[in-house]
Amino acid sequence: MLKATVYVTIKQSVLDPQGNAVQGGLHSMGFAEVGKVRVGKYIEIELNTADRSEAEQRVKAMCEKLLANTVIEDYRYELA
Amino acid sequence: MLKATVYVTIKQSVLDPQGNAVQGGLHSMGFAEVGKVRVGKYIEIELNTADRSEAEQRVKAMCEKLLANTVIEDYRYELA
Repeated sequence: MLKATVYVTIKQSVLDPQGNAVQGGLHSMGFAEVGKVRVGKYIEIELNTADRSEAEQRVKAMCEKLLANTVIEDYRYELA
Repeated sequence: MLKATVYVTIKQSVLDPQGNAVQGGLHSMGFAEVGKVRVGKYIEIELNTADRSEAEQRVKAMCEKLLANTVIEDYRYELA
């Protein structure tokens, strides 16, 4: 069994309202040192396969088709 | 300036409906090898400070007070 970890982040050029809300929240709680905040997703997937190179391709396909909206989001993944 | 990366994940003992939905979606798209899926948050925070040990404590406080719900979520962070 392999484990894939996928990180989905909003592209730098796209506004991140959730990140702005978190930034505002932290400021109002006294964390004045907080600059830009970006919020993304962190997805752990168990894969019932042992073929690493096939898994690599399959996880890429999952990201492109479902996990990330590639118009506004970037993704990267690790297999372990 | 330091950059903190925070990972917030749902505790193993807590149900993850979003993860189940993603798992179901991947199955119905033909990714039959997909086992358990867990969805968490990935937060990047710019910190306008150079004091690493102070930043460490401050980020821990941000996690405890705002970023994670420690009743149902775990968190970990890295400073770079």
